[in-house]
Amino acid sequence: MPIVVTDIQRADPEVADSLARFGVATVHEAQGRTGLMHQRLRPVWRGAAISGTAVTCTLPPGDNWMIHVAVEQCRPGDILVAAPIAEAHSGYFGDLLATSLQARGVRGLIIDAGCRDVDDLERLGFPVWSRSICAHGTVKETLGDVNVPVSCGETLVRPGDVIVADTDGVVVVPRGTAAATAAAAQARIDKEERSRARYQAGELGLDVNAMRDRLADKGLTYITQADWEAQQ
Amino acid sequence: MPIVVTDIQRADPEVADSLARFGVATVHEAQGRTGLMHQRLRPVWRGAAISGTAVTCTLPPGDNWMIHVAVEQCRPGDILVAAPIAEAHSGYFGDLLATSLQARGVRGLIIDAGCRDVDDLERLGFPVWSRSICAHGTVKETLGDVNVPVSCGETLVRPGDVIVADTDGVVVVPRGTAAATAAAAQARIDKEERSRARYQAGELGLDVNAMRDRLADKGLTYITQADWEAQQ
Amino acid sequence: MPIVVTDIQRADPEVADSLARFGVATVHEAQGRTGLMHQRLRPVWRGAAISGTAVTCTLPPGDNWMIHVAVEQCRPGDILVAAPIAEAHSGYFGDLLATSLQARGVRGLIIDAGCRDVDDLERLGFPVWSRSICAHGTVKETLGDVNVPVSCGETLVRPGDVIVADTDGVVVVPRGTAAATAAAAQARIDKEERSRARYQAGELGLDVNAMRDRLADKGLTYITQADWEAQQ
Amino acid sequence: MPIVVTDIQRADPEVADSLARFGVATVHEAQGRTGLMHQRLRPVWRGAAISGTAVTCTLPPGDNWMIHVAVEQCRPGDILVAAPIAEAHSGYFGDLLATSLQARGVRGLIIDAGCRDVDDLERLGFPVWSRSICAHGTVKETLGDVNVPVSCGETLVRPGDVIVADTDGVVVVPRGTAAATAAAAQARIDKEERSRARYQAGELGLDVNAMRDRLADKGLTYITQADWEAQQ
Amino acid sequence: MPIVVTDIQRADPEVADSLARFGVATVHEAQGRTGLMHQRLRPVWRGAAISGTAVTCTLPPGDNWMIHVAVEQCRPGDILVAAPIAEAHSGYFGDLLATSLQARGVRGLIIDAGCRDVDDLERLGFPVWSRSICAHGTVKETLGDVNVPVSCGETLVRPGDVIVADTDGVVVVPRGTAAATAAAAQARIDKEERSRARYQAGELGLDVNAMRDRLADKGLTYITQADWEAQQ
Amino acid sequence: MPIVVTDIQRADPEVADSLARFGVATVHEAQGRTGLMHQRLRPVWRGAAISGTAVTCTLPPGDNWMIHVAVEQCRPGDILVAAPIAEAHSGYFGDLLATSLQARGVRGLIIDAGCRDVDDLERLGFPVWSRSICAHGTVKETLGDVNVPVSCGETLVRPGDVIVADTDGVVVVPRGTAAATAAAAQARIDKEERSRARYQAGELGLDVNAMRDRLADKGLTYITQADWEAQQ
Repeated sequence: MPIVVTDIQRADPEVADSLARFGVATVHEAQGRTGLMHQRLRPVWRGAAISGTAVTCTLPPGDNWMIHVAVEQCRPGDILVAAPIAEAHSGYFGDLLATSLQARGVRGLIIDAGCRDVDDLERLGFPVWSRSICAHGTVKETLGDVNVPVSCGETLVRPGDVIVADTDGVVVVPRGTAAATAAAAQARIDKEERSRARYQAGELGLDVNAMRDRLADKGLTYITQADWEAQQ
Repeated sequence: MPIVVTDIQRADPEVADSLARFGVATVHEAQGRTGLMHQRLRPVWRGAAISGTAVTCTLPPGDNWMIHVAVEQCRPGDILVAAPIAEAHSGYFGDLLATSLQARGVRGLIIDAGCRDVDDLERLGFPVWSRSICAHGTVKETLGDVNVPVSCGETLVRPGDVIVADTDGVVVVPRGTAAATAAAAQARIDKEERSRARYQAGELGLDVNAMRDRLADKGLTYITQADWEAQQ
Repeated sequence: MPIVVTDIQRADPEVADSLARFGVATVHEAQGRTGLMHQRLRPVWRGAAISGTAVTCTLPPGDNWMIHVAVEQCRPGDILVAAPIAEAHSGYFGDLLATSLQARGVRGLIIDAGCRDVDDLERLGFPVWSRSICAHGTVKETLGDVNVPVSCGETLVRPGDVIVADTDGVVVVPRGTAAATAAAAQARIDKEERSRARYQAGELGLDVNAMRDRLADKGLTYITQADWEAQQ
Repeated sequence: MPIVVTDIQRADPEVADSLARFGVATVHEAQGRTGLMHQRLRPVWRGAAISGTAVTCTLPPGDNWMIHVAVEQCRPGDILVAAPIAEAHSGYFGDLLATSLQARGVRGLIIDAGCRDVDDLERLGFPVWSRSICAHGTVKETLGDVNVPVSCGETLVRPGDVIVADTDGVVVVPRGTAAATAAAAQARIDKEERSRARYQAGELGLDVNAMRDRLADKGLTYITQADWEAQQ
Repeated sequence: MPIVVTDIQRADPEVADSLARFGVATVHEAQGRTGLMHQRLRPVWRGAAISGTAVTCTLPPGDNWMIHVAVEQCRPGDILVAAPIAEAHSGYFGDLLATSLQARGVRGLIIDAGCRDVDDLERLGFPVWSRSICAHGTVKETLGDVNVPVSCGETLVRPGDVIVADTDGVVVVPRGTAAATAAAAQARIDKEERSRARYQAGELGLDVNAMRDRLADKGLTYITQADWEAQQ
Repeated sequence: MPIVVTDIQRADPEVADSLARFGVATVHEAQGRTGLMHQRLRPVWRGAAISGTAVTCTLPPGDNWMIHVAVEQCRPGDILVAAPIAEAHSGYFGDLLATSLQARGVRGLIIDAGCRDVDDLERLGFPVWSRSICAHGTVKETLGDVNVPVSCGETLVRPGDVIVADTDGVVVVPRGTAAATAAAAQARIDKEERSRARYQAGELGLDVNAMRDRLADKGLTYITQADWEAQQ
């Protein structure tokens, strides 16, 4: 039975807001390399970097009705996560729905299907990560669910989880671990800053990360070109 | 027997010119959601939006000879539609052919195969929608046809039809219905303008489109998170 | 046994440097249409055009350890060519490794797998051609080889070969024929310049390339629309 | 923190067993067209049709360690569902693991990644639905989870849910609704049986399903070839 | 306006029937290497080889209503060609529709989308060439056309054309040239029979086809391994 | 300059012959998980398992001329490896060329492109591993090379290397290490035989491979469903 869950519990908005600045790659590392959506989800225009709390919906093939239903469940600071239940490339989303979401303070859309009006979306400054850019329209005939756990981009998303999206892709941070992930991300940024200075100074990763002994233990051998050719 | 049809009947140029400003998504809707090419056809540089009358040609695998033949059949206001007869990613088209088409007043190229010299094409301002960007050159050994009906982008194109192309993709408007489609597109734009104002004002699609009763009839149910969890 | 070849012979740096300005399409033509990598290798940011000498490494699935090893073998003017031994989309490479390669004077990376931190890479001005953009991190557990011949982008690359990469893709020029290829590329550019002037003046490829007789010999027939319809 | 949930609640085994005979397409219809995995999951050998209760695990890229951990959690009547957390085609599973699962009474494997030893699997009669057939081996370095909700085949699977798999694909039936789905599937089979007799007797779907009025209402028009051509 | 053309002109049934025995590859060659559908159309079960006259229909995304309409237009000896107007993988066709088509003497289905109940189809002996095997059901809400020219498998098909399908794929033979194609196919078979005997006797293609001089003219050079290595 | 190397050095035929019985997965493991071709190379008919020495050739797009040239370089016990220099799906190979290769004692074909006449190939018992099954014919206009190192299936193959191919895919064994690989494969088979007995007896991989301590060290935690739910 198709349902709309109306009062989902969202991640702490302050934590949700803070994750955008770390970026997708760092957040993904900070939570143990989990929660990354499939790389086929790409920004329809380049440059946006957002984070926010997930409102989810499922989409029947070629049917965008549930996006309209989901809009009503969105609040400022949310990101809508639209998960088709079968591979689909139709244009489920365009500038009118973007206008509506923007009017509600929604920060962006993640949709594992098609999107259209992409020039308008860029003009509006409304960011979308999608699987396809496709103008083919959708019908409004079949119900789905809003604010239930979904599989989007081959990853599990629960309503209220934090979504982080930038040019590198989209990552999901479970509501319950968002604060710990933010802390781990900050620690990682700090550590990378120190490494970056060493790399800029010309130090090698082999030394920055003390890899030489372990490489030798595993059997890595350095030989000359002449010796290599003699072995062929 | 390979042929070139020399005196095709084109859509009314005024109508053909007028369709660009509606955009691909609106034109596609205005003609009943038909005629859209496959979403794999993407602009090789971003920003162009054109419409014009189709000159068509077929392409044997890895052979671009018929593009040269087709150029001669083009007039100002045309768009060349190049349809390979087998999946192919070679670079059938580059800056020299673009120079030649531009010199004849051709507005762009739609090719369901590869294209190269894309930086030059952007500098020239010659827009191309292609399946691939690939530098692999082609031979000139096998004939095809010019100005016959073709399947391009998984869609039927007849010579003289109107092509509309922008960042959302490529749509084909049959010559005979182009004027009616233009009128329907204008009506759709007007209607969307009214809806847009309501969305901007914060109204929901559920109300703008009067969807609530029909959703309830289909059985959509609103429940609380607590009730949902109790059901799991 | 995993090995690192330490003293590879590189193509003449002057020749290697000179190839960038011809561009990928022309270089590929100039060497008889060989050596082009698969079109799935795309620039992660648009606008760079480079050439340089190849340092190669192989990558086990989801493991970027050998990139660290390969960095040490790089010199100014090199381009790193990273070849996974199985299809992989993880983000093997990001801004720290780019910083390290830049510090060594390396001009870019060709990787037939995933890359991340692409906004940072654009800010750094470090160009990468990759198969995917993906934030998923990699481990450092399994060895591969550095500076052996590899298959990258479905093309054979030997250490020391010249790599040319731009918006059209990536082409490999064997070390031994790089000088001859540069000469042939220059000749081709000169010839195209002459053709371009004729195309700009409105001449047709059919005449610029003297194709009409051969087309007729092969049986190409020009007919009117009316005659064509009568045949259907 | 990687975890193994040890005492999952499984769907009623009698219900789970009963679903195989309805087949994937009917079960999918019976539960409102939800829960179907992506069509890229194909049987590695053809002919098996199974149902059973899901034990789930996640798989890091190129790492099959958690399959070994998951085996211990399996009981007779289970089906193992292995969900990679990134696109991967390595051969995570072969004849030794199949032998182990068979020894525990497990009915099959669903894996959204690669599988190998497929001739052996057919000889053993152990069915596998996978994304790829690929011999590339995996490492055992990184942990994942066992018996948590996963996204497999772009669909949400909870441990203890029922899996139904045959030549048409793989469908997931939530534990809580499995009995109702079985009843609905039986009703659908009965209804289809009656329709089948009418189709065999030459009746048309237009009449069996009383579609003619609705088609006319929507505007479907029957015309002759001559009239159609006159309109072109 | 959606239409059904009711009295299409079919190719000569005797000619249409005769083409199956030549096979797809030979027919495709016999008509100058045109008309082949994309290789993604594969038989859902292996072994069938058919030819017959095309009844065509278009399919909106995820909507199989027009298949029901098209069935009524089919006669014994026909093959139904179902062309989606957007990429779609749903299961538009299953055993009930196959039963209905079989009852009317239809020989098979070509569908550039998904198909389900494939085990039943094999039991029925009803052959289908499809893009996907997918159980996801379709709705009946949107109209399309029956017996108009369509683009299916990236190829133009007109109602009444001949379809030939076997393990190698699907080829379309225009109604007007079917007899000539049959004659050319027979000639090709005869010629291949003579070549086959020579190949079986150990003659080389280089000699059977007198290729040596032309290869030498193009510059093919035979060298020893030692000489080749000296050049590297 | 296109060349044919005429006197390549082949791997020891006895060793080359012996590898087929180990199978692709075992050989691939035995040589350190290298040399596996991409999983897109699939047998066009199922059941064959071969090994032999590689004769290589490159293929221009849509051009199979070099296969004819390569046939002459083949001897009994060889396997022809045909490597296109650009992605291509045409049917480069069919029953006549198979007849010719069989007459010379060649054991099979590996082609990273299209193949046709697959029913005939199965009747002949001539095994082919290909990327596509496609009837589209090829021309004979452009030269390539025979018996040079090639990139096929995204893997480097040198003439004279051993090829092993079965239902799991295709692996390349360098000529110089073939004997060592055969020995390692035998050792692996022996070890797996002992493990298999233990798995059949119901022992777990966790114990057969002594994994429990290392899992615990890495932090794997076993918890109850109740505890897990309390954490959510």
